[in-house]
Amino acid sequence: MEQLTVHASAQSYPVYIGENVLHQTESLLKEKLAGKSKAMIITDTNVGELYAEDLRLCLDPMLPVCVETVPNGESAKSLASYERLLTACIREGLDRQSIIFALGGGVIGDLAGFVAATYMRGIPFVQVPTTLLAHDSSVGGKTGINHELGKNLIGAFHQPSAVLYDTQTLMTLPDREWRSGFAEMIKHAYINDSEFLQWLKENVRSIEDIKTNKIRPFLKRSIAVKADIVKEDEKEAGVRAYLNFGHTLGHAIEKLAGYNGDVTHGEAVAAGMMFAMRVSNYLGLSNWDVEEEVKWLEALGFPVNIPAGFSAQTFIETMKKDKKATSGQLTFVLVEKPGCPLLKTVEEHLLYELLNNDKRGMTSGD
Amino acid sequence: MEQLTVHASAQSYPVYIGENVLHQTESLLKEKLAGKSKAMIITDTNVGELYAEDLRLCLDPMLPVCVETVPNGESAKSLASYERLLTACIREGLDRQSIIFALGGGVIGDLAGFVAATYMRGIPFVQVPTTLLAHDSSVGGKTGINHELGKNLIGAFHQPSAVLYDTQTLMTLPDREWRSGFAEMIKHAYINDSEFLQWLKENVRSIEDIKTNKIRPFLKRSIAVKADIVKEDEKEAGVRAYLNFGHTLGHAIEKLAGYNGDVTHGEAVAAGMMFAMRVSNYLGLSNWDVEEEVKWLEALGFPVNIPAGFSAQTFIETMKKDKKATSGQLTFVLVEKPGCPLLKTVEEHLLYELLNNDKRGMTSGD
Repeated sequence: MEQLTVHASAQSYPVYIGENVLHQTESLLKEKLAGKSKAMIITDTNVGELYAEDLRLCLDPMLPVCVETVPNGESAKSLASYERLLTACIREGLDRQSIIFALGGGVIGDLAGFVAATYMRGIPFVQVPTTLLAHDSSVGGKTGINHELGKNLIGAFHQPSAVLYDTQTLMTLPDREWRSGFAEMIKHAYINDSEFLQWLKENVRSIEDIKTNKIRPFLKRSIAVKADIVKEDEKEAGVRAYLNFGHTLGHAIEKLAGYNGDVTHGEAVAAGMMFAMRVSNYLGLSNWDVEEEVKWLEALGFPVNIPAGFSAQTFIETMKKDKKATSGQLTFVLVEKPGCPLLKTVEEHLLYELLNNDKRGMTSGD
Repeated sequence: MEQLTVHASAQSYPVYIGENVLHQTESLLKEKLAGKSKAMIITDTNVGELYAEDLRLCLDPMLPVCVETVPNGESAKSLASYERLLTACIREGLDRQSIIFALGGGVIGDLAGFVAATYMRGIPFVQVPTTLLAHDSSVGGKTGINHELGKNLIGAFHQPSAVLYDTQTLMTLPDREWRSGFAEMIKHAYINDSEFLQWLKENVRSIEDIKTNKIRPFLKRSIAVKADIVKEDEKEAGVRAYLNFGHTLGHAIEKLAGYNGDVTHGEAVAAGMMFAMRVSNYLGLSNWDVEEEVKWLEALGFPVNIPAGFSAQTFIETMKKDKKATSGQLTFVLVEKPGCPLLKTVEEHLLYELLNNDKRGMTSGD
């Protein structure tokens, strides 16, 4: 088992990473659970079936436990699910000394975290991520749900009390989920750590490399990048925005694709990162060999092309509705070279041109 | 105009108190509004008609302004209103550089504050309280809405950027609203400041005294008590709980009365404070002349009796469902003597006995 500490303003908290961490819940969280009145495990139908009973049995000797299950998928991050879970908290008698466990991927972490952030003005919660993508989202305290008009528009910063990252739970993930999570790992390398990027490029050259033990040593390093940035800028007033590398266009791709699984978050971010590299090259800020980067991602199975069927104008309008936009201006995270990110407001006409080039390029095998 | 500063962890913020403070919004908030993209005024039908246009005109030279109005009354603190306001924020194009103005009493402050706390994971807001009660609730960053199963069960701590307390707006309040707010002022004196209590007792002996300029000098002092406690314990992990003096039974009275205006918040708190004094006397912790205190409150027009029609058991069960209860135990704020509060878990059988005594006493003219 490996361990690192995240330093946030309200509290510091541990991240435990390793096989069977979930089954060590009792010993790892003994102190944090002392005096707690009740635990609620919030999970989804897929993950719940596999691990909810295991976690419940681990907690059961220490405090009363209940389990709430929501449907699997992005649709669970709705106001309706949120309200249903709050009702369950009240009916189950959770009080300010109670604690919530978010058992699942990013959707569950965001949803259960927002319930914890706002039930009785905030109760503690523990992240128990079960996807590779959630190695990123479970750290840093961003919680939230979707509004029908936009993703993650409702939420709060609420740091977990601990993160239990049981790498054994990843073993049941389908390839696309591995890939989706690996995109955030690559992102951490691009924005923060050229050595880490080099390691990833040398060691991870196929989906099989991602799915095997090869990737394990990099998990802690990737989480450490996130933890360092969160420590410096918890509420995203500054450097935390660098974590949005690939996300400006990425979120628009996800939104237009409809969050129905046609495009995973990581696939959208991967395409967004490649686009951001083209933007920074075009602005003369960098000298990326974008085609080399694309080749690497394609070898891993990423569809890095921007989805067809939407005009450049549609992408631009969608990006302007994102919560990262300010006064209708579009800000991109650009990376001059590995480890050197910067924020840049980019003119619409330039994006229009590049989006058209990119799409043309992609369809002709660029 | 008077001014004081509230020191919270995330930021310190000014409270401006005086006549026509609202019309000085532009000069008072010039710096805070610099660079902001848009303002949304959230108000209710009653207050909006009187002051929304004034505030809009003050802000208009500085930034775009929109106004959202909810129905007057406690029913506006619902998940439905919350969702409607979030939708309005999105449709009006509010972004992370936008700011919300909560123009109204405690209901509007809580509701608009919770929208600000959770829209895009938190945007700034300004409290513009228009009731005496809100001199208390507008300071300290508690925001929230009601769940159909309980009051204020959904919420967050989110400190305002400023509080503009225009005492001119109080002039249109009905007597019961003045009285309701004065109960919180008395509470601040009981728990924190024996000299302040003495002043209030000597100077405020009728509802007319509350409604006239006599009360003005005490407003800043009362807010200062709240500000000092918030500075010491922003998230209610310790001394902030003293502000719940009178609220354990008070919240139960309000809940059982149905929040329909039959019993105001301050009336319920006044009855709760008298009951808490009887509890501490009974436990031998104090030597209050409760009948003297009751006489003072009755001279001000407070109905300090516990409402008839509910059994002692019903009150106890209702108190146990409050978010202040932990593991089903009932904790009261007791006051040994003015300025000396303490927290005490009180046995149910004792409460049962005292509630029965109290109710019997009251109906026989105790």
